[in-house]
Amino acid sequence: MIIVLKPHIKKREETAVLREIRKLGYKPHVMRGVARTVIGAIGDERTHQSLETLITWSQVESVMPVQKRYKLVSREAHPTDSTVTVRDQVIGGKKVQIMAGPCSVESERQLLSTALAVKAAGATILRGGAFKPRTSPYEFQGLGEKGLKLLDKARRETGLAVITELLSEDHVDLVAEYADIIQIGARNAQNFQLLIAAAKTGKPILLKRGLSMRIEEWLLAGEYVLSNENPQLLFCERGIRTFENYTRNTLDLSAIPIVKRESHCPVVIDPSQGSGRADLVAAMCKGAVAMGADALLIEVHPNPAEAYSDGAQQVTPAAFARIMQELAPFLAAAGRE
Amino acid sequence: MIIVLKPHIKKREETAVLREIRKLGYKPHVMRGVARTVIGAIGDERTHQSLETLITWSQVESVMPVQKRYKLVSREAHPTDSTVTVRDQVIGGKKVQIMAGPCSVESERQLLSTALAVKAAGATILRGGAFKPRTSPYEFQGLGEKGLKLLDKARRETGLAVITELLSEDHVDLVAEYADIIQIGARNAQNFQLLIAAAKTGKPILLKRGLSMRIEEWLLAGEYVLSNENPQLLFCERGIRTFENYTRNTLDLSAIPIVKRESHCPVVIDPSQGSGRADLVAAMCKGAVAMGADALLIEVHPNPAEAYSDGAQQVTPAAFARIMQELAPFLAAAGRE
Amino acid sequence: MIIVLKPHIKKREETAVLREIRKLGYKPHVMRGVARTVIGAIGDERTHQSLETLITWSQVESVMPVQKRYKLVSREAHPTDSTVTVRDQVIGGKKVQIMAGPCSVESERQLLSTALAVKAAGATILRGGAFKPRTSPYEFQGLGEKGLKLLDKARRETGLAVITELLSEDHVDLVAEYADIIQIGARNAQNFQLLIAAAKTGKPILLKRGLSMRIEEWLLAGEYVLSNENPQLLFCERGIRTFENYTRNTLDLSAIPIVKRESHCPVVIDPSQGSGRADLVAAMCKGAVAMGADALLIEVHPNPAEAYSDGAQQVTPAAFARIMQELAPFLAAAGRE
Amino acid sequence: MIIVLKPHIKKREETAVLREIRKLGYKPHVMRGVARTVIGAIGDERTHQSLETLITWSQVESVMPVQKRYKLVSREAHPTDSTVTVRDQVIGGKKVQIMAGPCSVESERQLLSTALAVKAAGATILRGGAFKPRTSPYEFQGLGEKGLKLLDKARRETGLAVITELLSEDHVDLVAEYADIIQIGARNAQNFQLLIAAAKTGKPILLKRGLSMRIEEWLLAGEYVLSNENPQLLFCERGIRTFENYTRNTLDLSAIPIVKRESHCPVVIDPSQGSGRADLVAAMCKGAVAMGADALLIEVHPNPAEAYSDGAQQVTPAAFARIMQELAPFLAAAGRE
Repeated sequence: MIIVLKPHIKKREETAVLREIRKLGYKPHVMRGVARTVIGAIGDERTHQSLETLITWSQVESVMPVQKRYKLVSREAHPTDSTVTVRDQVIGGKKVQIMAGPCSVESERQLLSTALAVKAAGATILRGGAFKPRTSPYEFQGLGEKGLKLLDKARRETGLAVITELLSEDHVDLVAEYADIIQIGARNAQNFQLLIAAAKTGKPILLKRGLSMRIEEWLLAGEYVLSNENPQLLFCERGIRTFENYTRNTLDLSAIPIVKRESHCPVVIDPSQGSGRADLVAAMCKGAVAMGADALLIEVHPNPAEAYSDGAQQVTPAAFARIMQELAPFLAAAGRE
Repeated sequence: MIIVLKPHIKKREETAVLREIRKLGYKPHVMRGVARTVIGAIGDERTHQSLETLITWSQVESVMPVQKRYKLVSREAHPTDSTVTVRDQVIGGKKVQIMAGPCSVESERQLLSTALAVKAAGATILRGGAFKPRTSPYEFQGLGEKGLKLLDKARRETGLAVITELLSEDHVDLVAEYADIIQIGARNAQNFQLLIAAAKTGKPILLKRGLSMRIEEWLLAGEYVLSNENPQLLFCERGIRTFENYTRNTLDLSAIPIVKRESHCPVVIDPSQGSGRADLVAAMCKGAVAMGADALLIEVHPNPAEAYSDGAQQVTPAAFARIMQELAPFLAAAGRE
Repeated sequence: MIIVLKPHIKKREETAVLREIRKLGYKPHVMRGVARTVIGAIGDERTHQSLETLITWSQVESVMPVQKRYKLVSREAHPTDSTVTVRDQVIGGKKVQIMAGPCSVESERQLLSTALAVKAAGATILRGGAFKPRTSPYEFQGLGEKGLKLLDKARRETGLAVITELLSEDHVDLVAEYADIIQIGARNAQNFQLLIAAAKTGKPILLKRGLSMRIEEWLLAGEYVLSNENPQLLFCERGIRTFENYTRNTLDLSAIPIVKRESHCPVVIDPSQGSGRADLVAAMCKGAVAMGADALLIEVHPNPAEAYSDGAQQVTPAAFARIMQELAPFLAAAGRE
Repeated sequence: MIIVLKPHIKKREETAVLREIRKLGYKPHVMRGVARTVIGAIGDERTHQSLETLITWSQVESVMPVQKRYKLVSREAHPTDSTVTVRDQVIGGKKVQIMAGPCSVESERQLLSTALAVKAAGATILRGGAFKPRTSPYEFQGLGEKGLKLLDKARRETGLAVITELLSEDHVDLVAEYADIIQIGARNAQNFQLLIAAAKTGKPILLKRGLSMRIEEWLLAGEYVLSNENPQLLFCERGIRTFENYTRNTLDLSAIPIVKRESHCPVVIDPSQGSGRADLVAAMCKGAVAMGADALLIEVHPNPAEAYSDGAQQVTPAAFARIMQELAPFLAAAGRE
């Protein structure tokens, strides 16, 4: 931790800071600069968080942490890329995996027809929400267990793996029974109790970035998964909230190279939530592949205009197949499959 | 719902939109303007959300909702101010209630000394976190049930009511046993299952605004409480996330008149989280009272520099007493007590 | 400047950093911590900006400035409050000055009737735009010189001082001839050539905060005024851009205590632009006064619905008079007039 | 314009709104819905802006514009892609143009060596700042006219076209004499007088997006160029300001498909400003090409650590050459050169 003192303070004010630093278990190291005196407090910052509170002292101008706060998710801890394997499919390897399916599971017919179509076009993982977090209590909340059973049926009929969202600690066992990958949604990205409970199932976890989460916070939320002894973690960028209102969210594709630099975990891009507009999905997918995404999570619905949720961002099976074709040369350019 | 068509579309493209509107149960009403044709779809927007998905149709330029999505929290549903009563103290009445205490409960001595001090200075409700949501898994996570018991002890010794945070569905019964008011934190503001579970305890709920929540979304999250038959809801503004980095958050005091215009529920301001800096708390409190806040939630710690969490934003008991004195003329100016 | 090295780097990589620090004229000071080596580079940061570029070196993890970048606007340079005097009215003294008038000058009748009304209600400075920066080229761009002449006439008839916006280097002499205070708008807050030209007129400058300006950047923009030998500077907060869409901007009242802590210059609040809604102006004014604003800048129009610009945020003369009355007890509470 | 009335208003309140709509020259069209009465005001919204001010009336709940505010930059006005030609190079055609060079022109040697290197690697346009807008008055402000002369010399020696920034109305003639493309920087993106003056030179204009500009506002700023009879306009995305602090800005690549959908003008991406980090430039370039960018604007410096400005985001000539090679397969995948 670096502590910058205000100019022109008294000697005893400086001494008091040094005493507190020692009291908290750090070794102070004083540097006298031209305009300011700076103190380095030497020790592990993660065990003595309270040092940051020196900022409240009147003689202190600023306090700056030196260490990174994440450990297990960091590249320092694991220099090579980690991978997550789901039903023979490796996420984080040479092949860019495609997760596709409807926003919400609505009916057997809707789900199966979509599953068959996305499989035919190249998807390997089926997405579909059985429990839906909705901004308003008056909106469709998902089919619940019935939806999970339909996902299971679709998995048996198509061989696709299944990813579905977990949004309550009360559903952990139920969702873990049916899901191959457990998704934690953006609104629960810092619901740490849910993250811990999900991690403990031992299932791979896909952690969406919260709407206004800094990348450091996102990595720290992932740390809750790895520190609960579950190494199977995927980070999924799905758009952040900005002042722009043309799109529902602003997809931050720069998160791909940044997370890959800081962490060893695979990165997934959700262009559907990330823009909220079906007509932008194809372009977003191309950018994501070019920038190094390990998987894409795409919403597909047989009839978006009649979807129970988020119709505006779901593409039709035909459009999905077209996107898959258009992606092929970009996958090749990126040295991926 | 208002549907704006693109210019120069074909007659049959318009007809298809009209057909879909009718199919979804709305009555279309066509208006031909100078540059655009606009269709009003008449019907209750809350039951046919899917109409918004017309935005995916190539002939549609924009779709704009007309109705407000919140119902029970709105002033339309309840034109007069509602109040929440906790141990004889009315929140939302003439008296501005002061909730004060440490960020985290750390020890009996720390809590009791703080409780006595804040009571002496005018607080009526004691705050203290027993379960703490922390960005990093390596930070102090709270004393848990032991913390709740200390809060109970402080309540018995001082007569102060107790507000404490609930962050897991697994702790609902436990927290409800000890809390007079259940706090839902900013990171759980759209954890709808937690909101429902908290609402069902029948205890008053203080709902903090999420870091990047629009006011409409915040009111809708409150709707989850009221629609689960708990009318005792407090909205608490605690700072939003912006690009500014001088403060930890940007306290949005304009939320006070806005929420009071749109809703009947009392509004609480948290100047401690709202700025992240103890030296700004006094000014924030004055602004909050002047703009009509019904209560303040202030973090007080006997020795902020040694706090287990968020020391930089906690004021000392002496500073708290000074703030209470400075507030008096502003309370009078606002016609409050 | 503090330079944090990556862990596990080679000795010669560290040596290269030390060599570069010396080459740029700083004295390096090495601190070896538990997890990282940290180097303090001792010297005046403002003259050797380039040190920050060490961040591009592969062995460097982060580079953190220690010094504040602003000088003349800072409290360090001028510990007591500075004031700006305009036609016998002191801004930054005990009296909270009220600047009021229409968004745009539209006609003699509109301007004079407003001027008389705001003077009667307590305003001392008349605002009115003659040159208007408009988002679209098809919107009303102001009356130009004719508008300035009307402002002059209103000044002669009422004795009010005049504040008006400068938006082009080509208009500097013209605007300076008529204005008592020159306003630099939010969209020009980092138009540094305009700031320099305005400063050189010697007239007091009111500098609005840009839509997404950090406070540090705003103070540095003010530094362009003071470093061009014009000490008469007012900082005006007028709302920042966030994700919220209920209001046009989010008025950041916390800017008042922050700017007053960091700088000696008076702070003005614009609740009209700051919310974009006439119905929120009264509450914003009360909060501003309670938090220490030195002046308010309020848009008043005889008939807002027929205004040529920004009608939604202008209050009527009657509403303005009511706001002035409602403010009186808050002024007293704040120890102001 | 769509005007939504509040529920339960009196008949005469509705009549007053209808009267005002007619008075302002629109034809009202009433639609009675289940919960609200909605009025369509038929007429050209661009000539009667004031209708929006009905929002100030107590009986009005919301006012929503229907028409797009931009005209000449829109695809409606010009359905096919427009192109800008500079010294035989077409921007907006099949070839993705590369603009590269130092942030600031610092010396003949620095500029010429960079120009030769970027030309050899495939660039066709040389960038270099002679006038620099700097956040602090104490930072390097550019070589001014001397810098322009060096750019001219580099152009003559290499045959590269030249793009350089204009930041003052006082420099319009000077900059226009030397520049092949005039750049308007992010901080001047809504400096409308500068836009008009630049447009009138007849030179191609590259308009950077402001730090917190909505795409609609950016297109409207472009409208200032086209409506001043200069059809040669390039939109350049260079990162927006968000809460993230890992990067200096958040590059919004989704702006590419959006601007191309709404407008016919070519889109340029600046990955250097867009991230502020040299190590992210390569990934950003790949994403930009995959998503349809027409040109890239890349900062290259022979020795970034000793640059006079923004060293952290400039790549070396060797790194630039590597990026050009890595881009080749992505250009092919996108069907570009």
